[in-house]
Amino acid sequence: MFEKYDLTKTIDETNFEKAITPLKQRLAILQRTLRDLNIPVIIVIEGWNAAGITMSTKEIIQSLDPRGFTLNATDNANDEERARPFMWRFWTKTPSKGRIALFARSWYSRALAEKLSRIGWKKTLKEEINSITVFERQLSDSGAIIIKFFLHISKEEQKLRLLERERNPLTAWLVTPRIWDFHHNYETYLPIIDEFIEKTDSDYAPWHIIEATDRKYAIFKVYSYLVKHLEKHAAATTEDRARKARQKTISRPPKNPVPRRSSASKSYSKEECQDQLASLQIEMLELNYILFKRKIPFIIVYEGWDAAGKGGNITRLARYINPLGYNVLPVSAPNDYESQHHYLWRFIRHYPKAGHFAIYDRSWYGRVLVERIEGYCSEAEWQRAYQEINEMEQDYVESSRGGIVKFWLEISREEQLKRFHQREQDPLKQYKITEEDWRNREKWDLYDAAVDEMLARTNTPYAPWIVIESDNKWYARVKALREVIRHAEKLL
Amino acid sequence: MFEKYDLTKTIDETNFEKAITPLKQRLAILQRTLRDLNIPVIIVIEGWNAAGITMSTKEIIQSLDPRGFTLNATDNANDEERARPFMWRFWTKTPSKGRIALFARSWYSRALAEKLSRIGWKKTLKEEINSITVFERQLSDSGAIIIKFFLHISKEEQKLRLLERERNPLTAWLVTPRIWDFHHNYETYLPIIDEFIEKTDSDYAPWHIIEATDRKYAIFKVYSYLVKHLEKHAAATTEDRARKARQKTISRPPKNPVPRRSSASKSYSKEECQDQLASLQIEMLELNYILFKRKIPFIIVYEGWDAAGKGGNITRLARYINPLGYNVLPVSAPNDYESQHHYLWRFIRHYPKAGHFAIYDRSWYGRVLVERIEGYCSEAEWQRAYQEINEMEQDYVESSRGGIVKFWLEISREEQLKRFHQREQDPLKQYKITEEDWRNREKWDLYDAAVDEMLARTNTPYAPWIVIESDNKWYARVKALREVIRHAEKLL
Repeated sequence: MFEKYDLTKTIDETNFEKAITPLKQRLAILQRTLRDLNIPVIIVIEGWNAAGITMSTKEIIQSLDPRGFTLNATDNANDEERARPFMWRFWTKTPSKGRIALFARSWYSRALAEKLSRIGWKKTLKEEINSITVFERQLSDSGAIIIKFFLHISKEEQKLRLLERERNPLTAWLVTPRIWDFHHNYETYLPIIDEFIEKTDSDYAPWHIIEATDRKYAIFKVYSYLVKHLEKHAAATTEDRARKARQKTISRPPKNPVPRRSSASKSYSKEECQDQLASLQIEMLELNYILFKRKIPFIIVYEGWDAAGKGGNITRLARYINPLGYNVLPVSAPNDYESQHHYLWRFIRHYPKAGHFAIYDRSWYGRVLVERIEGYCSEAEWQRAYQEINEMEQDYVESSRGGIVKFWLEISREEQLKRFHQREQDPLKQYKITEEDWRNREKWDLYDAAVDEMLARTNTPYAPWIVIESDNKWYARVKALREVIRHAEKLL
Repeated sequence: MFEKYDLTKTIDETNFEKAITPLKQRLAILQRTLRDLNIPVIIVIEGWNAAGITMSTKEIIQSLDPRGFTLNATDNANDEERARPFMWRFWTKTPSKGRIALFARSWYSRALAEKLSRIGWKKTLKEEINSITVFERQLSDSGAIIIKFFLHISKEEQKLRLLERERNPLTAWLVTPRIWDFHHNYETYLPIIDEFIEKTDSDYAPWHIIEATDRKYAIFKVYSYLVKHLEKHAAATTEDRARKARQKTISRPPKNPVPRRSSASKSYSKEECQDQLASLQIEMLELNYILFKRKIPFIIVYEGWDAAGKGGNITRLARYINPLGYNVLPVSAPNDYESQHHYLWRFIRHYPKAGHFAIYDRSWYGRVLVERIEGYCSEAEWQRAYQEINEMEQDYVESSRGGIVKFWLEISREEQLKRFHQREQDPLKQYKITEEDWRNREKWDLYDAAVDEMLARTNTPYAPWIVIESDNKWYARVKALREVIRHAEKLL
């Protein structure tokens, strides 16, 4: 692909000034327009070392109001980032609605540096492309604009620039042995980058290769593509964008019903269950230690009917985990900060560190349960969510080598009623029962269908659903612990 | 102080069970009460190595709803933390209203490990005590409950426990050479810890020394102090707590008027200013590089009248800073997430990394400007804020060895009116002028007095206010750049 670009292209000073001034003005206006339209924008600047990434970034932000963008200089991962799945550090940096996030180098450079600089890169490349495609498509589907630039120079030009930098005391420190090493392997990396770019070039996140030998020409090209692209998207009305999103909607994952029963648990006595807990507890202690030492993260999702006993179940389960190695994340409606982001953002932010557990008390499945039923998101959005969630979970499992189990706490409608009444009569538990619980109960049938669909469409080999029969809470606690152990052991 | 504790104290199994069960129930109820009262709680567990910090923590959280607390296992700082002032990592982990933050080890252990394990600790200790006192007092003044435990065992007991841990393959890895080293220096650390505890023991953040030789006795003591302390505070009504906060209010910092004029700038022409900018720009380039290499952070605060030109001034100033080394933080009303925390929390979170600039477009001074005038906080709160802010800035400067300048952009009342009208007439600038701007303008005199008081009370040698005469925006831009250079140079 690279061969078709003419690296000798230049622009003279007069033409440059004439061309660039109106583009700068248009970009400044666009920033405000996009802010008013609440559209998040992601601009990626990639390229060969010394091709002018910093310079181009500086030029772009000259036209922007600094209060409305964030510049992310992507470099080696820090401790926190290294302890999470590869894409985590980029997910956490996606812009909120109406803001611009510039990435001077990005997931592409990092994938190249961290994942592809080794033998067998062809196979890894495919995985990385898949990971990145999911990330960009999901953001685009939620309304973000993504545009990507690759600054292209020849090997000879790169050499000249590196030597020039070495001569300048202010920049000499930038030219590390690693940079030279990369330079000497220009031809090795060329086909990898070529394939990488080709496979991640899409209508929702297009690449623009910039001939960057002439610095002014490069700036002019970046500006023109950027302004053109943003103007096109800003012009599309919200309705247009919604329609486009609908068109992009891909078929939902296949449906494999997951049976639910709640009463199966009734026959176990409290004593039997406590005996079992005692022995499982010892297994869990050892397992916890091994997961920690091997830096394997583990996610446990709790969903279930109101009054199914999520709180009590979580409290008991948590007792068997090293308290310094887990977090419980109570999930309710997104706050105003969170709702300015992609709906998965607030969950991904709290991914467990390597070797830790994260217990989500309710989760991203709210999208296809309460948000679906209460109309907090559009039908297209929750329809799309099944696949998005599967992709997210798959990416987490593959890139962290961690585990995930999802518990559905099932109780019968009668049992729920019984518990609601008990709660109302117990002064210590009254706080647990609200008007909303009664309203939700009236929508039992709607939820019932949504739960069936959720289980059927998101029960995957890498992130299975486990139905916890919870009419008997003792049994439910034993089963939860047993299933965590069973699934975590598979990772060893 | 340590000598007065009797390390031979024990409790027998029967008494323990009888005592602990009701305490556990009371703690569980207290957690809900404190949540309903919106009170944040901080529990610190410190102690000698192997004294039972993890065990005590585990015991406490057994009684807590895991959805309402966060456990912070304090260990070595990570990259992000190391690049910020010492207390930053703890500020960012303070609990939101109604939540409990447990610290298994805390700022005390870290200060000891990072600051006091060296010759000359006496002087450092004084600084650390001051830093910590400010932190705890400010949190307490805003309504947080803080309680601290130190688990005390003898050197002999410690040795027995470390040997026991070494024999167990599951815990042997915990006993590092550093731990043994610490053990051998038990007598060296004893007086340091003694002084540290004595000087940081206060009515708002009391220490409890726990005789921890007998594990059950230690748990019983921790539980009883904790429950007693929390019950006392939960019983105090909101009104009581507010009154107490008022009593604690300390005298306001001295008042040294800072003159403001706006017109002084009028005589400079645009061309003169641009000439000066060109030469300052070169100085700034070099300065920026040195600050970066020496890892010195720098904060620039912008405050000023509406239409004084903050946005334009920031945009121009930012152009002279390496774009990968600064962040502009636009500050508006706190969102619902931020307002669940101490009012300084959201600013401290965004402290610049070592070697970076942070530009705050409006800042914590909102407390004594808009929040004061619009009544968003109580009089006691904004009165207290002058000292709190001075303390915060001093702590930042001392612990990061960084710099801070604060710009007040001054324009005359007439100039503001002129600019409001200009904005209304310019289609590109109309968005900048709102009803609120006109309403604020009507309160000019109130703001005028508040600005005078703010400048006078918070103009300190370590964090000076610079009045930028901004009737002439060209002059204002030159002055801002010049002052940044002047103050940053002092740090070299």
